[in-house]
Amino acid sequence: MKITIYNCRSDEAEYLEGFRRKHGVELFATKESPTAETVGLADGCECVSIITTPMDETLLKTYRDAGIRFLSTRSIGYDHIDLKAAEQLGLHIGNVSYSPNSVADYTVMMMLMAVRKVKAILLRSANQDYSLRGVKGMEMHNLTVGVIGTGRIGRTVLQNLTGFGCRLLAYDLYPNDSVRKIAEYVTLPELLKQSDLITLHMPATRENHHMINRDTIAQMKDGVILINSARGSLIDTDDFLDAVENGKIGGAALDVVENEAGLYYNDLKCDIMKNRGLAVLKSYPNVLVTPHMAFYTNQAVSDMVENSIRSCILFSKGEKNPWQVV
Amino acid sequence: MKITIYNCRSDEAEYLEGFRRKHGVELFATKESPTAETVGLADGCECVSIITTPMDETLLKTYRDAGIRFLSTRSIGYDHIDLKAAEQLGLHIGNVSYSPNSVADYTVMMMLMAVRKVKAILLRSANQDYSLRGVKGMEMHNLTVGVIGTGRIGRTVLQNLTGFGCRLLAYDLYPNDSVRKIAEYVTLPELLKQSDLITLHMPATRENHHMINRDTIAQMKDGVILINSARGSLIDTDDFLDAVENGKIGGAALDVVENEAGLYYNDLKCDIMKNRGLAVLKSYPNVLVTPHMAFYTNQAVSDMVENSIRSCILFSKGEKNPWQVV
Repeated sequence: MKITIYNCRSDEAEYLEGFRRKHGVELFATKESPTAETVGLADGCECVSIITTPMDETLLKTYRDAGIRFLSTRSIGYDHIDLKAAEQLGLHIGNVSYSPNSVADYTVMMMLMAVRKVKAILLRSANQDYSLRGVKGMEMHNLTVGVIGTGRIGRTVLQNLTGFGCRLLAYDLYPNDSVRKIAEYVTLPELLKQSDLITLHMPATRENHHMINRDTIAQMKDGVILINSARGSLIDTDDFLDAVENGKIGGAALDVVENEAGLYYNDLKCDIMKNRGLAVLKSYPNVLVTPHMAFYTNQAVSDMVENSIRSCILFSKGEKNPWQVV
Repeated sequence: MKITIYNCRSDEAEYLEGFRRKHGVELFATKESPTAETVGLADGCECVSIITTPMDETLLKTYRDAGIRFLSTRSIGYDHIDLKAAEQLGLHIGNVSYSPNSVADYTVMMMLMAVRKVKAILLRSANQDYSLRGVKGMEMHNLTVGVIGTGRIGRTVLQNLTGFGCRLLAYDLYPNDSVRKIAEYVTLPELLKQSDLITLHMPATRENHHMINRDTIAQMKDGVILINSARGSLIDTDDFLDAVENGKIGGAALDVVENEAGLYYNDLKCDIMKNRGLAVLKSYPNVLVTPHMAFYTNQAVSDMVENSIRSCILFSKGEKNPWQVV
């Protein structure tokens, strides 16, 4: 069988030869995005692997009409794909899982960076200002950390934190027994009220759109530190900017922002960026912004490529596929 | 009794009123450094509290002749004080201990930042270059971490790391039983050979001056990541620069550098910095440099001021003083 891998980056391509041999499949890698113009690159495929390209009804129909039956996105999130349209077209969609440690390690790093005011330290240091004013940090063992969402990543964040001596709170609609051994499940209002540091670890859904907004921020501690390595749409950017400016939010680290699609992973050095919220966020000395890098490890990239291939193979064989979404 | 507190910063001064009442002592805080000109500010004191000012034989004699019997530095390190001269002059010297979590938390942050190539991510992101090229990180659970020096800080670094799933190696002349429960003590050559990530946690002594040099670096893994939140003199800067440039060292995070005295904690925005090694270190995209900030937390600052006061009181009363060095 043949699988076309769209948007295949050079750091993904280096794993392909190994996976070709290991799984006995024909892999056609292209740097092109899946569009109406590039659908021909999937000739002879039943399954294709994509990544963050927005797939609307029209585009999905194009691929369905070209004989594609299954699209596997090499990401955990699949909010860039119109699932409803896919279902109506009889197309099947899969995501992939990968090492949760990639995002979890990065999240703990962002927590520490926010708590230790490293953005301000680095900005000033670049300018030879080595003064101590305003950069006194806190110690993790004195803090209560609240983790919202205890799926694979949230759980791993909690696990990473077990050695630091902080108090660990968790919230999830579906509590997990392994989490109960290391953290205390509380209600969402209790978590918001008691946490010095709050981190988000859930997929973007219609229900949790803007779950961090002026009402939920008002329930938090003064000076709360907020971490988001999940999805930009979880936070209402305007409400968040207000809370940073009035001092309610004491610090933040955001690996994701609203409307980041089309910006991240591109070199926009010479471009006028059309995302004013992001520009303002980047301007605050106490808000660290990174361009959706939390997933980006050698282990995770290898997992994403291999599991996308595995998922296509399972789909083709009609076997049980842990990554199939619809 | 009266204690003069030299180089008292505003963020230290805010704790003084509380300590005055708590310990029933007269505290005179000055922003001045202890010099021949400012010795009069210690009139009526038997003990003074200082911080990083270099105290050579001449200066120590000035303070001895003014009636001072005990100098307490509000730092763990005391390599800025000529201990031998102090002893010959009949002066006594103390350091302070403070929450090891300040430095230990910061050290783990620096490890994660080095492993995840955050300096490069931030530099490029500031310039709207959001590309992935060259910033793929590693995951802690895949790494072996070697901690050299298992005193209070090294132990706390190991403790912080217990949740990440990495292999933990340790080296110290005096192994510690509590460390044995979470890490494996090995010889120094074994630690250098096996570790993906090496972090230094010992005081600066004559014996360990430049202990990281071309010979010890040669024993390390190719691409090793090196963390230093201890003392700049532990690393031979020239040998280190060579190893970064030839790729032997894959990444580093240095909160301390050689010959940093006089630079850090000052605003040198308009100055010509006379430390070429530091300038070169700051230029590398894979070497994070921060200005000796690892200690700087609210808990640690409070501890440093209070324990310096406590130490002076214990000295005056002739009681057992855990912080007295000579």
